[in-house]
Amino acid sequence: MARYRLTIEYDGGPFVGWQRQDNGPSVQAALEAALAKFTRETPETIAAGRTDAGVHALGQVVHFDLARDWEPAKLRDALNYHLRPDPVVVVDAAAVPEAFHARLSAVRRSYLFRILNRTAPPALEVGRVWHVDRRLDVEAMHAAAQLLVGHHDFTSFRATTCQARSPLKTLDRLDVRRVGDEVHVDAVARSFLHHQVRNMVGTLKLVGDGKWSPAEVGGALASRDRRAAGPTAPPDGLYLVAVDY
Amino acid sequence: MARYRLTIEYDGGPFVGWQRQDNGPSVQAALEAALAKFTRETPETIAAGRTDAGVHALGQVVHFDLARDWEPAKLRDALNYHLRPDPVVVVDAAAVPEAFHARLSAVRRSYLFRILNRTAPPALEVGRVWHVDRRLDVEAMHAAAQLLVGHHDFTSFRATTCQARSPLKTLDRLDVRRVGDEVHVDAVARSFLHHQVRNMVGTLKLVGDGKWSPAEVGGALASRDRRAAGPTAPPDGLYLVAVDY
Repeated sequence: MARYRLTIEYDGGPFVGWQRQDNGPSVQAALEAALAKFTRETPETIAAGRTDAGVHALGQVVHFDLARDWEPAKLRDALNYHLRPDPVVVVDAAAVPEAFHARLSAVRRSYLFRILNRTAPPALEVGRVWHVDRRLDVEAMHAAAQLLVGHHDFTSFRATTCQARSPLKTLDRLDVRRVGDEVHVDAVARSFLHHQVRNMVGTLKLVGDGKWSPAEVGGALASRDRRAAGPTAPPDGLYLVAVDY
Repeated sequence: MARYRLTIEYDGGPFVGWQRQDNGPSVQAALEAALAKFTRETPETIAAGRTDAGVHALGQVVHFDLARDWEPAKLRDALNYHLRPDPVVVVDAAAVPEAFHARLSAVRRSYLFRILNRTAPPALEVGRVWHVDRRLDVEAMHAAAQLLVGHHDFTSFRATTCQARSPLKTLDRLDVRRVGDEVHVDAVARSFLHHQVRNMVGTLKLVGDGKWSPAEVGGALASRDRRAAGPTAPPDGLYLVAVDY
């Protein structure tokens, strides 16, 4: 019995999300089907982050156990062969100790949210960015974001369906910056609540639009009520960039 | 009668290229169809660069004449409405003097060629990069590229079907650099021969692979024979980034 860790990249567009569900294709089901094809084993795969429908990954991390030993590079190449034509790719594979757990051992998760901030819609980046046509005030968004950094009760930014036991989280970094005609939001924490990044981005967008002051974001956080914060940003612009252990 | 200039972005994947052809959909035909829908005029559109099938544009420039006057922002928005769902977008529109000509007035064209240089194929960037799985020697590629910069007879890097009167061109810049897990080639010149960028990239890749020395690229240039240079790189990685006037 050996445990393997994969780093995977995927286009979240065609999937109902990471997790296997009855209502459509999931990244997990695609990966497990590819694994079964050549290992003839059917391990459960466990991911660092259960990304939602439409959310992309550049560096999702997954672990699973196999009875047979595999050379990691062969595992990677065989998976990539059998994953086609699904837009899921194994960037890296490694054998890891049995104590390694993709979700529980993670100490830091990094997300990127991309906003295309120009009048014209995307031609090349359809489904990969949130298109916001009015120019956003990035400095005000960044200032507001700093009010969310730190250890807080994030109830206001948590999906009402979130199953986490506690709404208390420590947000290490939330940076907003302009990159060409895009606005990028970088979010880093040990872990996030369900929809937390998208709810923070949807709220910061109100600040970028001039509808809210940065202080109102602090007020929304303090009220501990989902209805006090802004709407959920669409999944298209969200990327799970990296998981650290 | 008024002349208009558009800056357009497109995904070259579904098209036979910029130019209208009998064998499939072209960017030019998509743009002209969208124009006809709301202007009820059928002007010929002229582009700065006749990109090939599969080649993308971030900043292609196009001009055409209309009998009726249009506010440029309205022209842009109406075109974007009627271009859907084709992956072609008008980023900018402007009224220009009649002396402006998208192709003949251009003084500089900038192309980017993206190589995804890692073992795993692309998941998110399928059709947008050339996937090269063996690690390339970027320093050697850049050194070789410098032998192509300047005023030369580029017969060795010109498609045999190229219709330009002269093979003499001045290449202003050809830079090769690593950007994360990609290798980017930036090419800048007043104008390029048919397939010149892709033939230069295909040749530089032989240097990156260690199959050719940089000096052999200089030799290929000097021999003025298409068979002396390397193969044509695929169109997927090529972007017309900007045109200056």
